[in-house]
Amino acid sequence: MRGTVLYAPGDVRSEIVADPTLKEPTDAIIRTVVACVCGSDLWPYRGANELKRPMAMGHEYVGVVEEVGSDVRGIRPGQYVIGSFFASDNTCPNCVAGYQSACVNVRSVYGCQAEFARIPQADGTLVALADAPDAERLPSLLAASDVLGTGWYAAVAGGVEPGVTALVVGDGAVGLCGVIAAKELGAERIVVMSRNPARQQLAREFGATDIVEERGDDGVAVVRELTGGIGAGAVLECVGTGESMRQALHSGRPGAMVGIVGVPHGVEISGDDLFRTHVGVQGGPAPVRRFLPDLIDRVLTGRIDPGRVFDLTLPLAEVSQAYQAMDERRSIKALLQP
Amino acid sequence: MRGTVLYAPGDVRSEIVADPTLKEPTDAIIRTVVACVCGSDLWPYRGANELKRPMAMGHEYVGVVEEVGSDVRGIRPGQYVIGSFFASDNTCPNCVAGYQSACVNVRSVYGCQAEFARIPQADGTLVALADAPDAERLPSLLAASDVLGTGWYAAVAGGVEPGVTALVVGDGAVGLCGVIAAKELGAERIVVMSRNPARQQLAREFGATDIVEERGDDGVAVVRELTGGIGAGAVLECVGTGESMRQALHSGRPGAMVGIVGVPHGVEISGDDLFRTHVGVQGGPAPVRRFLPDLIDRVLTGRIDPGRVFDLTLPLAEVSQAYQAMDERRSIKALLQP
Repeated sequence: MRGTVLYAPGDVRSEIVADPTLKEPTDAIIRTVVACVCGSDLWPYRGANELKRPMAMGHEYVGVVEEVGSDVRGIRPGQYVIGSFFASDNTCPNCVAGYQSACVNVRSVYGCQAEFARIPQADGTLVALADAPDAERLPSLLAASDVLGTGWYAAVAGGVEPGVTALVVGDGAVGLCGVIAAKELGAERIVVMSRNPARQQLAREFGATDIVEERGDDGVAVVRELTGGIGAGAVLECVGTGESMRQALHSGRPGAMVGIVGVPHGVEISGDDLFRTHVGVQGGPAPVRRFLPDLIDRVLTGRIDPGRVFDLTLPLAEVSQAYQAMDERRSIKALLQP
Repeated sequence: MRGTVLYAPGDVRSEIVADPTLKEPTDAIIRTVVACVCGSDLWPYRGANELKRPMAMGHEYVGVVEEVGSDVRGIRPGQYVIGSFFASDNTCPNCVAGYQSACVNVRSVYGCQAEFARIPQADGTLVALADAPDAERLPSLLAASDVLGTGWYAAVAGGVEPGVTALVVGDGAVGLCGVIAAKELGAERIVVMSRNPARQQLAREFGATDIVEERGDDGVAVVRELTGGIGAGAVLECVGTGESMRQALHSGRPGAMVGIVGVPHGVEISGDDLFRTHVGVQGGPAPVRRFLPDLIDRVLTGRIDPGRVFDLTLPLAEVSQAYQAMDERRSIKALLQP
């Protein structure tokens, strides 16, 4: 089948690889209907993570079940399914508490920028749709499998509740989906930090009420000005750098939380900053599975359209162009058609 | 009047100083009925904070109002009052949100290890009792003015709720009051990290169900073992060192919060640790004023007895011995009688 392999920083290739097979009796094999490139795929692509061996890329998917292992009970061939980038049993104490990304039997999902993929712990990981979805819903369902679920978690961990002023740090696909989440969860005002006109525009269409172009202390000052000197009541940190974290912390009002979903790269948070601001921090790899049924429902009823973050669609064979476009920030997020 | 002045690390003196006077029309002057030494007083006493000039010590108090400024409306001479170490107007947006320690007009209270003290913003800061309290309640009311309110905030910020397993890091007066708070807020199991037999005993009497003597990774391992491998559901960090913070973070279950109330001294929190553990952090100088009416009520009805953290009582004139005893950990907390 056709798959995607990263060999070295900047060297990602579409090539013919072995078909995935059932390895454990809890596995499923899916035929991918749509896949995409994630912002986090850019870390190894840019050389920020060490690459020990060639890496089968891709962890976002909408698929049709081809085959299931002998222990799979709830998922069956022919179903349209969506899952998250972490496979989880959905029954352990962490899963039951809503932290499926910390499942005691957590497994990574990989190799989904391909025609077929193996999904571990299919019963716990996959959510099946009742019917084949309309083609126009596919991008939004695909977004639910990662960026929407991640933005949603940023909003939940950031404590968005009705009437709050939410601040979204980051205008990537996750930040933009965070705007959707903040709006759906009832934020009255949604401030987005962005310098990119196209992303600003999409943020506004998703529900942003204010755009802040300034960064660092200047950006913090503008957010404070917008909030009567007090700060934002909920902050979504969707970048993961030291600068974005400081900006997030200093922009929150006392008692606000910062939901962190941008994978931190070398970020140290000053205890003194945390203490003096009374702003809290919580996050991690999003437990997308917790939110998936609700998110799928919001997509299928047409309430939200997160698929609009895909501004580039390419055949799977042209995956390297997708990486390039995202790396150069010419594209927010690229959808791949197998 | 007799007051307490810190001249240099280790050099704290009881001496005759000028009586406090009304400086602002919102001030009150109180006669202190009981005062005490705070764990945070030990930071400058030990030389951990720079001392630019001699410092009038003390910020915990139960007093009787002597005189009020012309703008004070709700507080009047003769009332027994309790307040926090931060004076607050109790009307600004931060106060209304329950963060009086981040009041936009916040003032420090100081010089309470003395016969009289000036309390700024009396209307917002002080809570008056209906009647003169029984002498036996005074230590517990005094505890409410700081250590109990601080331990309570650690429990609230740490997310203690009915049924949870709470972990208390720190066996000082704040940690011990954190045990009281965790119990009152419904924790089913309360694990306390302590190596001191007397403090362990008091912790148990306050409601601790398990004591962990190990520290660092060994301590984390024991907490995990006690919680079925998952971690504590709520963590109270009542120390403020890098080691205690790491221990707190690594002992929480995914989704748990660490309430931090120990003033961080040079603590950096690894973004990677936060991210991988799914454990959140929130805290700061406790908004004691938020909790005071409730805490006073619990004390006056005899429901809780936090005054038991005072294991040394001295006349105000012997304050230097109080500092010494606490510095050498011979005393948990020393009460001063003017």
